[in-house]
Amino acid sequence: MEFQAPVADILAAMQAAEEPERGGAEDIAPDTVAAIVTEAGRFATTELAPLNQIGDQRGAQFAEGVVTCPPGWREAYRRFAAAGWNAVAASPEWGGQGLPIAVEMAVQELWNAGSAAFATAPMLTAGAVLALEAHASPDLKAAYLSRLVDGTWAATMNLTEPQAGSDLGALRTRAVPAGDGTYRLTGQKVFISYGEHDLTDNIIHLVLARLPDAPSGTAGISMFLVPKILVGAGGMESRNQVVATGIESKLGLHGSPTCTMAYDEAAGFLVGEEHRGLACMFTMMNITRLTVGIQAVGVAERATQQAIAYARHRRQGRAVGWPGDGMSPIIAHPDVQAMLMRMKVLTAASRAVCHSCAYAIDAGRVANADRRRAWLDRAALLTPIAKAFASDSGVDVASLGIQVHGGAGYIEETGAAQHLRDVRVFSIYEGTNGIQAVDLVTRKLGLDSGRAVNRLIDDIAGYRGEARAANHPQLNLAADRLDAALDDLRSATDHMQQSMADDRRVKVLAGATSYLRLAALVLAGGLLARMAASAGGRVADGKPLAIACHFADMILGETVSLRRSVADGTTDFSAHATTLLSHSNPETP
Amino acid sequence: MEFQAPVADILAAMQAAEEPERGGAEDIAPDTVAAIVTEAGRFATTELAPLNQIGDQRGAQFAEGVVTCPPGWREAYRRFAAAGWNAVAASPEWGGQGLPIAVEMAVQELWNAGSAAFATAPMLTAGAVLALEAHASPDLKAAYLSRLVDGTWAATMNLTEPQAGSDLGALRTRAVPAGDGTYRLTGQKVFISYGEHDLTDNIIHLVLARLPDAPSGTAGISMFLVPKILVGAGGMESRNQVVATGIESKLGLHGSPTCTMAYDEAAGFLVGEEHRGLACMFTMMNITRLTVGIQAVGVAERATQQAIAYARHRRQGRAVGWPGDGMSPIIAHPDVQAMLMRMKVLTAASRAVCHSCAYAIDAGRVANADRRRAWLDRAALLTPIAKAFASDSGVDVASLGIQVHGGAGYIEETGAAQHLRDVRVFSIYEGTNGIQAVDLVTRKLGLDSGRAVNRLIDDIAGYRGEARAANHPQLNLAADRLDAALDDLRSATDHMQQSMADDRRVKVLAGATSYLRLAALVLAGGLLARMAASAGGRVADGKPLAIACHFADMILGETVSLRRSVADGTTDFSAHATTLLSHSNPETP
Repeated sequence: MEFQAPVADILAAMQAAEEPERGGAEDIAPDTVAAIVTEAGRFATTELAPLNQIGDQRGAQFAEGVVTCPPGWREAYRRFAAAGWNAVAASPEWGGQGLPIAVEMAVQELWNAGSAAFATAPMLTAGAVLALEAHASPDLKAAYLSRLVDGTWAATMNLTEPQAGSDLGALRTRAVPAGDGTYRLTGQKVFISYGEHDLTDNIIHLVLARLPDAPSGTAGISMFLVPKILVGAGGMESRNQVVATGIESKLGLHGSPTCTMAYDEAAGFLVGEEHRGLACMFTMMNITRLTVGIQAVGVAERATQQAIAYARHRRQGRAVGWPGDGMSPIIAHPDVQAMLMRMKVLTAASRAVCHSCAYAIDAGRVANADRRRAWLDRAALLTPIAKAFASDSGVDVASLGIQVHGGAGYIEETGAAQHLRDVRVFSIYEGTNGIQAVDLVTRKLGLDSGRAVNRLIDDIAGYRGEARAANHPQLNLAADRLDAALDDLRSATDHMQQSMADDRRVKVLAGATSYLRLAALVLAGGLLARMAASAGGRVADGKPLAIACHFADMILGETVSLRRSVADGTTDFSAHATTLLSHSNPETP
Repeated sequence: MEFQAPVADILAAMQAAEEPERGGAEDIAPDTVAAIVTEAGRFATTELAPLNQIGDQRGAQFAEGVVTCPPGWREAYRRFAAAGWNAVAASPEWGGQGLPIAVEMAVQELWNAGSAAFATAPMLTAGAVLALEAHASPDLKAAYLSRLVDGTWAATMNLTEPQAGSDLGALRTRAVPAGDGTYRLTGQKVFISYGEHDLTDNIIHLVLARLPDAPSGTAGISMFLVPKILVGAGGMESRNQVVATGIESKLGLHGSPTCTMAYDEAAGFLVGEEHRGLACMFTMMNITRLTVGIQAVGVAERATQQAIAYARHRRQGRAVGWPGDGMSPIIAHPDVQAMLMRMKVLTAASRAVCHSCAYAIDAGRVANADRRRAWLDRAALLTPIAKAFASDSGVDVASLGIQVHGGAGYIEETGAAQHLRDVRVFSIYEGTNGIQAVDLVTRKLGLDSGRAVNRLIDDIAGYRGEARAANHPQLNLAADRLDAALDDLRSATDHMQQSMADDRRVKVLAGATSYLRLAALVLAGGLLARMAASAGGRVADGKPLAIACHFADMILGETVSLRRSVADGTTDFSAHATTLLSHSNPETP
């Protein structure tokens, strides 16, 4: 089946996120954005989509330190770089286009719909460019940025070690000053996406390590730039002492090599200040977390299109009222329609939430000083929500995609199963969704003394108001449901904030995942309602209306049980944990 | 990690299903059952569990019509058969032990926890034995049953064809009378589990096909027994004209060969009456559907144990209140505990629902005439619920199992991902879960003019009463929640029955999956509450109490939104389907 770039849906999600009257992001001419997204869609469908299954079947190959990407990937990467797609959000100073993060997310969705395993490479490079722009010295910028932006070189993030995954404070890789302003890094990193590959001649690793005098924990981590190939004076090249020692056999993303990296006194350059590496890496990680959400949207969109195409083609049984003789296509069966519509609304909801976050990031960069803090808080609040909700939804959608295919969905040749295998990692990497939920409830709910989340809730109430203003009977019903869901969110938020104030941390942590999903559903409900209303006079005929109403009908009702999980359900959590897991928490219920 | 057979949990689920005062199933001495389940647990842990990962990694191999099972499987199957495990539910007339289906399900769970891919072979044989006992001629029984029961031979189900999956009425395989009382079968069957293998010397296929004079649709299907090896007078053996032409590359269950079978005038024997084959096959399929639910319980149990073991071992971060220095095991983190407890309660809920169904099947066989109909109806009602709920829960549980492992969960070597890949098929085969939901709402809700489902609801209310009688504050809270959930189920049931009466079939079908889940959750909530109460004086210290309460706290609240999906949410379903899928339903909303 042919993948079709959902250009109009992406543009609508971008538009629904805009708040120019509040000092939001700069306007980019809509026509320019539409032209870029359209062209990205063309590239994704013609160049990347055909690589997806062969990437899965052949996978990246490892032999004696060399990693070979699947057939066709090297050529596609060359064309990708030549077309300037690595440069979207980078600064014009280094050859970039300086476009908003929202545009970067729009095209990243398309790369991931084309091939998520392929898209992981440029995603990491784009994130590294942003981190270096923010934190590297002028010399490092001059030496590396333009070749990353033009795609000649690629970049990676080197954080995880065997004993340091979610807990980066435990990392042990050492960096010792060499006396000439550079450092020598020694240690092992694991789960490094594209740590080694044959797409580019050089690979620039951003590596977290400890200096000899570093304090323990996360306060003692510094960030280094470690090139695979060192380029000296006069262009002399020498191989640095960093090698891949193997790649993982994974559930999915087979085309993306996940490397174990060995550093043996590898030469590196400090990025930012000593011991401040985690903050530098977070410049990259916050964008990357949002991009992971967008990765999931891309795979979900592809899985949905594939399932709809299959359901139109496959004939089984005879649907109620099917005209004529013979079997009907399964898309005519209501239970299949219910699955397909769930796929569509979850994908649309995830896209809307991700673009709401992307807009906040952009607004945080350009807003006036008096508005800036609020936008930065909004971005900080929405990043874990977007990452976790979109990735969890991606798993639901891809699993439904298998189900629509019936027995054929379980056969690898069909391609439906690959989407589930690929999308499954997005709930895990760049901070597991559990980590996102803990980040949300322990750090982000307290932003601006709790006012940040209350402003978000007020804004969602505003979207509900916009929906009511359209004065359309179906949309009014959706707005009623959104009202009830907003009450659930307010109640759960109050409860969480009170529990934090009372230092009942076990209760807060135990309800974190439910709270995150509750917030995401209400935000999505609001954004989808706003999109339906903004179609204005076109409400009656609209796909946005159907999406908003079906989401409110079939998904939003979950907020009742989620609020209960947050507010009531955890009463005896610790006692049950002790009984069921033989593991107690210190907090008395 | 070492798998531990959950013998006590299985016995408790069996006990919670019992209703002897209503003419339920015969008592088997509890000590006997416990001894059998214990011994099965020993076999599953020592003989089967070690085969699971190698079965996945090596897979079944196909070459020139010959299928080779993974290393060690042939030997394990010999020991399995020698220990008499194929004989549990079979009639003593053919060497079986004649034990209840409930005991068969108890041991099937353990085989599947050991290795689901392995367990699929004896599952099919056990189902075929039941079908042949019920429908085959005395000659066929004499010729085949004892060797299937002692495991010398294995059996298969041959239903699906490329154009006939969910819609068996479309099948085309032809059976022509040979003039000597036998038939010649010609056609192609696909997705045939263990259609060819090297575990036994002969394979007995139960095949659905059409006679030349057959009416079209499902009313024209007959069932045939087609041996791979024909055994003639004097023990002369000849190869029948049925061969495997290939095996599928699947998402999971790699050790279980999924074959394409070619019949080319293969000799076959009619089982049961001409044109009545679907009814005969349903003898096998109803048990098999329940067994698929139990397969999912087995994999869910294994995934849960593995995740708990990993969470005890893996150290990251420092949990709130963790005593001493250094990192705590991740099982001390509340968000990880929440995942693990969700895994535990979903597994327990699925097991309870499956055993409620198994007991009804057994009671339907032995109850007095005046009670029999009600038990048969109960079994018919619970079969789709048990199959779909347990298999959907299995996917949730296995996916959470990956999540608990973090990045390691995405690496195949860890084994967590295999559980998701394996369990994913159970929502699909033996009738997709969509088919189960449609069966439930269109056929089963009408049983005994709707009284069958109302009796079920009354029985759940009775379990709630037993829970209240224990007079325990936490269990009373769970009972309150069960009351609310029962109201949701009553309301949704009334709504479904009214919609059926009004012939609003699109509405019924669109809400079928939500209704099934709603019914399953309420039944599970009732059974778990009953199990907590039946611990009697031991309520306060009990794992059953923690399971029942945590299920009521964290899962049962879903019934609110499910009721809404069934009763309200589908108001504009057809209009939305038209808009979003470009496919309309004939029913005006």
